Amino acid sequence: MADPALEALIDALRCLPGVGQKSAQRMAFHLLQHDRAGALKLSQALASSIHEIGHCERCNTFSRDPVCSVCLDETRDQTLLCVVESPADQAALERTGSYRGLYFVLLGRLSPLDGVGVRDIGLSALLQRAADGLVSEVILATNFNVEGEATAHVIGEALRQRGLKVTRLARGVPVGSELEYVDLGTIAHAFMDRR
Amino acid sequence: MADPALEALIDALRCLPGVGQKSAQRMAFHLLQHDRAGALKLSQALASSIHEIGHCERCNTFSRDPVCSVCLDETRDQTLLCVVESPADQAALERTGSYRGLYFVLLGRLSPLDGVGVRDIGLSALLQRAADGLVSEVILATNFNVEGEATAHVIGEALRQRGLKVTRLARGVPVGSELEYVDLGTIAHAFMDRR
Repeated sequence: MADPALEALIDALRCLPGVGQKSAQRMAFHLLQHDRAGALKLSQALASSIHEIGHCERCNTFSRDPVCSVCLDETRDQTLLCVVESPADQAALERTGSYRGLYFVLLGRLSPLDGVGVRDIGLSALLQRAADGLVSEVILATNFNVEGEATAHVIGEALRQRGLKVTRLARGVPVGSELEYVDLGTIAHAFMDRR
Repeated sequence: MADPALEALIDALRCLPGVGQKSAQRMAFHLLQHDRAGALKLSQALASSIHEIGHCERCNTFSRDPVCSVCLDETRDQTLLCVVESPADQAALERTGSYRGLYFVLLGRLSPLDGVGVRDIGLSALLQRAADGLVSEVILATNFNVEGEATAHVIGEALRQRGLKVTRLARGVPVGSELEYVDLGTIAHAFMDRR
């Protein structure tokens, strides 16, 4: 009954993570009924980002240039390499203003249930990057959930085997929080890592 | 720090209903990292559906032809007009095989909180459609939630004022359900409408 172009749109919207048949239908109806300008903008943004955005040769983040602006910044400390899961994490670290080294962006994390293995997170590219002779310390800043910790563990082992110094962002009580409401695992880590 | 094309993509994804900054970011990263083919397909599906899909002149549903195939079907009962909120609802009714009349698709429902008023749901188009001299009964099949009921009420009043017979899909206990688990409002309606 539905138009083939409408069916194709609903089907194509399902390529978005977390969008099933019902959501895709709702999105398609919304765009066609209320926001054709937004749909056109999205169509163009998708097309141009696919054509323009590749990966930085050095840090693997999304970049239209062969090497991204952060990697090209010579004022940054070339001996420190911070490993993050995504450009969003990198942006969060940058906003703190407390780190002036370089980054490596995994663009993923180990997630066996989703079929994401060691090959999919650019481990070999990271090992090659870290072996440039300048990097003396690799700081693992993957997320502190199960998948991020597993990713940090695997990466850390591989880097240590190659004789590199590997550190991990400190775990502890978040600034501004009350102990009563902090989970037990965090408090246990804060005890172990007390200084 | 992020590429302008990437920023534009994240921004454009936010035109989708229910997608905020975080989800848009996740979607953009996913598409660029894991599914460029899907992103290209989505870009093309958006562009072609905007260009190809308009509205049926008679029933207001999405259609690439001036009049959709359902409205053109002369074997359908031209005296019955069923009002639904969306093509998805129409498809659900069609699947039952229990209705052979025509449809009018509102493509929306009254929702004052979202700024959707009487003008936005095509009420005047419906009144014009129902006054074709053939329609003798309008069946209101908007959803049975608060917004759908309000929509049915407003539409029903307007149609009755023009001397049309207006009916509503029966409320009652769903087939296959156990009374113990049916909500009280439904049971109360089932008592009132017993037959």
